[in-house]
Amino acid sequence: MTFINDDFMLKTPCARHLYHTYAKNCKIIDYHCHLDAALIAENHRFEDASELFLSGDHYKWRLMRAHGVEERFITGDAPGREKWRAFARTLPYAVGNPIYHWTHLELYRYFGIEEMLTEKTADEIYERVNDKLCGAREFIENSGVELVCTTNDPTEDLQCHRVLQSPKLRVLPTFRPDRAMAIEKDDFWDYMEQLNVTTFAQLEERLAERIAYFAAAGCVLSDHSFEKIPFACGNAEAVFAKRRRGEQISALEEEIFKTAVFRFCAKEYSQHAMAMQLHIGAMRNNNSRMFARLGPDSGFDSLSDGCIAASLSALLDSLEKEDSLPKTVLYCLNPKDNATLASMAGNFQNSGVRGKIQFGSAWWFCDHRDGMEEQLRCLASMGVLGDFIGMLTDSRSFVSYTRHEYFRRILCSVVGGWVDAGEYPRDEAALGTIIRGICHDNIKEYLNV
Amino acid sequence: MTFINDDFMLKTPCARHLYHTYAKNCKIIDYHCHLDAALIAENHRFEDASELFLSGDHYKWRLMRAHGVEERFITGDAPGREKWRAFARTLPYAVGNPIYHWTHLELYRYFGIEEMLTEKTADEIYERVNDKLCGAREFIENSGVELVCTTNDPTEDLQCHRVLQSPKLRVLPTFRPDRAMAIEKDDFWDYMEQLNVTTFAQLEERLAERIAYFAAAGCVLSDHSFEKIPFACGNAEAVFAKRRRGEQISALEEEIFKTAVFRFCAKEYSQHAMAMQLHIGAMRNNNSRMFARLGPDSGFDSLSDGCIAASLSALLDSLEKEDSLPKTVLYCLNPKDNATLASMAGNFQNSGVRGKIQFGSAWWFCDHRDGMEEQLRCLASMGVLGDFIGMLTDSRSFVSYTRHEYFRRILCSVVGGWVDAGEYPRDEAALGTIIRGICHDNIKEYLNV
Amino acid sequence: MTFINDDFMLKTPCARHLYHTYAKNCKIIDYHCHLDAALIAENHRFEDASELFLSGDHYKWRLMRAHGVEERFITGDAPGREKWRAFARTLPYAVGNPIYHWTHLELYRYFGIEEMLTEKTADEIYERVNDKLCGAREFIENSGVELVCTTNDPTEDLQCHRVLQSPKLRVLPTFRPDRAMAIEKDDFWDYMEQLNVTTFAQLEERLAERIAYFAAAGCVLSDHSFEKIPFACGNAEAVFAKRRRGEQISALEEEIFKTAVFRFCAKEYSQHAMAMQLHIGAMRNNNSRMFARLGPDSGFDSLSDGCIAASLSALLDSLEKEDSLPKTVLYCLNPKDNATLASMAGNFQNSGVRGKIQFGSAWWFCDHRDGMEEQLRCLASMGVLGDFIGMLTDSRSFVSYTRHEYFRRILCSVVGGWVDAGEYPRDEAALGTIIRGICHDNIKEYLNV
Repeated sequence: MTFINDDFMLKTPCARHLYHTYAKNCKIIDYHCHLDAALIAENHRFEDASELFLSGDHYKWRLMRAHGVEERFITGDAPGREKWRAFARTLPYAVGNPIYHWTHLELYRYFGIEEMLTEKTADEIYERVNDKLCGAREFIENSGVELVCTTNDPTEDLQCHRVLQSPKLRVLPTFRPDRAMAIEKDDFWDYMEQLNVTTFAQLEERLAERIAYFAAAGCVLSDHSFEKIPFACGNAEAVFAKRRRGEQISALEEEIFKTAVFRFCAKEYSQHAMAMQLHIGAMRNNNSRMFARLGPDSGFDSLSDGCIAASLSALLDSLEKEDSLPKTVLYCLNPKDNATLASMAGNFQNSGVRGKIQFGSAWWFCDHRDGMEEQLRCLASMGVLGDFIGMLTDSRSFVSYTRHEYFRRILCSVVGGWVDAGEYPRDEAALGTIIRGICHDNIKEYLNV
Repeated sequence: MTFINDDFMLKTPCARHLYHTYAKNCKIIDYHCHLDAALIAENHRFEDASELFLSGDHYKWRLMRAHGVEERFITGDAPGREKWRAFARTLPYAVGNPIYHWTHLELYRYFGIEEMLTEKTADEIYERVNDKLCGAREFIENSGVELVCTTNDPTEDLQCHRVLQSPKLRVLPTFRPDRAMAIEKDDFWDYMEQLNVTTFAQLEERLAERIAYFAAAGCVLSDHSFEKIPFACGNAEAVFAKRRRGEQISALEEEIFKTAVFRFCAKEYSQHAMAMQLHIGAMRNNNSRMFARLGPDSGFDSLSDGCIAASLSALLDSLEKEDSLPKTVLYCLNPKDNATLASMAGNFQNSGVRGKIQFGSAWWFCDHRDGMEEQLRCLASMGVLGDFIGMLTDSRSFVSYTRHEYFRRILCSVVGGWVDAGEYPRDEAALGTIIRGICHDNIKEYLNV
Repeated sequence: MTFINDDFMLKTPCARHLYHTYAKNCKIIDYHCHLDAALIAENHRFEDASELFLSGDHYKWRLMRAHGVEERFITGDAPGREKWRAFARTLPYAVGNPIYHWTHLELYRYFGIEEMLTEKTADEIYERVNDKLCGAREFIENSGVELVCTTNDPTEDLQCHRVLQSPKLRVLPTFRPDRAMAIEKDDFWDYMEQLNVTTFAQLEERLAERIAYFAAAGCVLSDHSFEKIPFACGNAEAVFAKRRRGEQISALEEEIFKTAVFRFCAKEYSQHAMAMQLHIGAMRNNNSRMFARLGPDSGFDSLSDGCIAASLSALLDSLEKEDSLPKTVLYCLNPKDNATLASMAGNFQNSGVRGKIQFGSAWWFCDHRDGMEEQLRCLASMGVLGDFIGMLTDSRSFVSYTRHEYFRRILCSVVGGWVDAGEYPRDEAALGTIIRGICHDNIKEYLNV
């Protein structure tokens, strides 16, 4: 029998009450994920449990590698069943890891499977999952999802998104122009060519067009990933030209360029009332050998640990003082930065917008019970938890919506725990507003969707 | 009915025992705050609940801004009653925030108000508070306070402090020469003029005079605020002269100057047996637009996140090796630095002074339940908790003494929790000494007051 | 009566079950410590309780200094009995400090003493300990220890280690070439002379010889201490020569040299299948005055707080891409780095070795209940806890094996707590494998001993 019962993760009576009364039935707004809209549009069919659960999921790949599984059974050409077995062999060792919980939540909610996944049960569970596989869109629709925001390159035509709108499920694009800022990368000029851009002014023009195009397609969010926060003033056009001539540019010049592109985009977001997400602190592709073999997003990323407060403050202030700071969500990957970001958000809150600057949900390596609790407690201690816009999956998987359930259970445990410890009154109306707000209503109001 | 009952925040039987037996009745020594001695001396009368609770309290301003309250109801010209309502509307959303607890503790202890402050109760509570308003000095005297240390600029004449000494309440000044170090600021030369100083040697002379003047007025503490810790050796007189000629100085030169001023002051403190507080890690005035409008200390500060260990170690060592390191209290604003400071303190402990170097209480953004617990546990794990000098309010409010109550409840929960978990014996004498020491006796011995 | 009962630190039923069923009886493999093999070989007799408990134990010295004990009773010439009294006077104040627990565990397990050590009991306990003192080797053999790995300079002849092997106790050396990297230190050239080395090439040659010599003596581990992680490419031979000519070298040149020595050693370890430990983040000898008086390792070290992610990643990657990254254990001293290291480990896991890159156990200043819990939870959240190689003492004491007991109790509390909270199933086989693995089996497999 599964340990995923009604009260899973709900530690106190009030936690259970809050979850079952307010959180459980809220519709899901998954405002940041990495799903491929084409797969949703075509209602992609999965070949087997391995494709559904393991393909593309570099969280699980890392787990298997750490456990000594050979690469053939991870990203190699081993048959799906053998990959599944390798994963099943690994999982029981991952006590305390969120993947242990996620996997069993997914097996239970989507496939009614109560058994633990182990070496012994691997084959049986493999068959049972295979028997109940449905299409990608169906998985989402069966998950109580109201809205999904995918992550998209500025060059995308968003054709699939246009097709996808239905009363049952909305799928909106997110503008993510990371490639337009990556002047240090080898493929930057390919990308500029793709954008038909030869000067910085043209790049700005093109980005403005694409932001408008995205906005017209219903886009309400943008997203930027920063290993470190750039902030340097200077002549971005000159840097662009210099690099275009094939000359080396300095770290400062790179920062000048990135600051300029970012500031330009932010002002456009502000004009279009789009919110802006900053994902701070991922250090990517650390293993060159495996990068050469598998490319990016294959499980070789980790946390950077640089200082971010001064440059982030200056960057946000430079927008705020021109009255063009959009709604902003600040995410950190390194938990040492939680308090820095939670307090930073408070510097740029603005009359008349509830929770304009958000300290975003625990992300990626921090997206686990302790990480979520730390983010919630830090936000509560330094800001207004009741205005928090809550959870997103950040996932590439079509069955990861149970992570919203997981988050909600943890949220209710934290807040309900305070009530049961006598640290917040049993004010049913206030508690209902707070819990429903964080689970659903706040993000709906925030994005105006 | 209020949730602020006798056992508020006291989680276990021994926590309750320790609080009610040892902590509750200790007199308060509030050795660091930002009260205006003039207001105490004149026993300032408050106009209404808004003036008492909200005026100058940028913690609450931040909360209201985060909740989307318009500035007019925060620092603007809206009537007190409307500001109060805006605060009341915000508060229930701030679940888990210390201001939720502080406010209800203050309403209950000073005004006997048991109701929760919400939009509905706002008006009634506003009237009830207004009806029971007394004078600033009376609020302090009714709080079981034995000694208050204010924070003062070297130029102050301390006239009010002289007037204030009474058998019921002592009010001592604290020497805080931040302006004398801020060579990068525009108003530095105004300040030098005020001090009648044109050379670095004169500055030293003047600081020595003022420290002696403060010491004669009963001052036992100094205070310095550092966004980053300076440590650089060089010719401070030359830097001073260069800047005085209107030339730009480098970051290194600025650091040389600051190091020199600080080291000079520290030696003087050592001579006068004054303790020295270092408040490390506040990044101030991040929002230029609001700074232009409201000036400093209006709720736009947050945490810096730079590296501090190497320069702090070198700075303290440079004093220690000349036998002129005063008693020192190290406070960090960024909780990532807790362990760094707790361990740093151990490097400079010195024969014969109990707890000479203190890892100071959780401060400002960290002054909440989790922040205090983390500081206490970190200190306990790396040092001698029983020698800790305990809590201060750091407050600008005349009714914030309940924060000592809040701290003491958390302290007793931590220590009592260990006893009830079998991690410390039920040694009544030892526990009484530890709790009374941290609440009152240690700071009295430390400051020799 | 002592509070060290059967269920000390075991908070829940499953915690107790796991400890008593699986953890308690595992033999100890203490794979990193600072014992002197000569003292083991000669079965050194201790003069009194002070020598056994206090001599060389700078953890306790710091505690006593923080409490205001004069240096004469710490490292000075006061009689053993008076030092013991000074320690006993300090200890009750150290509520929440691991030394409080360690001391009472040691008194109880090795001497059957149930009383708390206080000023009152000091003399009686002193006598009782003195009456039951045995030899250094006997203390180890009575502790259920299977294997001890000492820490050794490359120049050591390991004669004592050869003598020491017995069916009851194995003692293996660890290769720690810190002095060979410390080109910035004054005694570096003495050390080069001792190695008979005048060029960088010779240094490499000599290190290769010594690594081979150690490997032949059964060495399976190396160890490096880094205040900061070096990563810079360049001509190490040129740097060596320049410094040898008595010229100043830059910080960059120092880093080039250190990178080269380290990379060379790592490749050799890889060849000999030796694991490599990286102890990151100790800032040593912060108090110059006391360093001049007492030398290193006397209690004046603390945490550094620099950034480590980028250079550590580059350094490990530079080895991994040449297929010469050995098994590696990453330890951080600053708990802010826990998540950085736990995630970093995942970047270099490699097909076919279980837990090849380890996030090492909480160390030194973090070796306490909260520190161990944080390390375990962080590792569990980001990696595979079931593959963890577990605890080491890092100690200079012959009675510190109870720290393994302490760790195991905390481990069982964490894992058992999850089971009792319904976050991991009651899968007896899996739990037994995990607990026995972390306590003993994993390190045995990892080191192949």
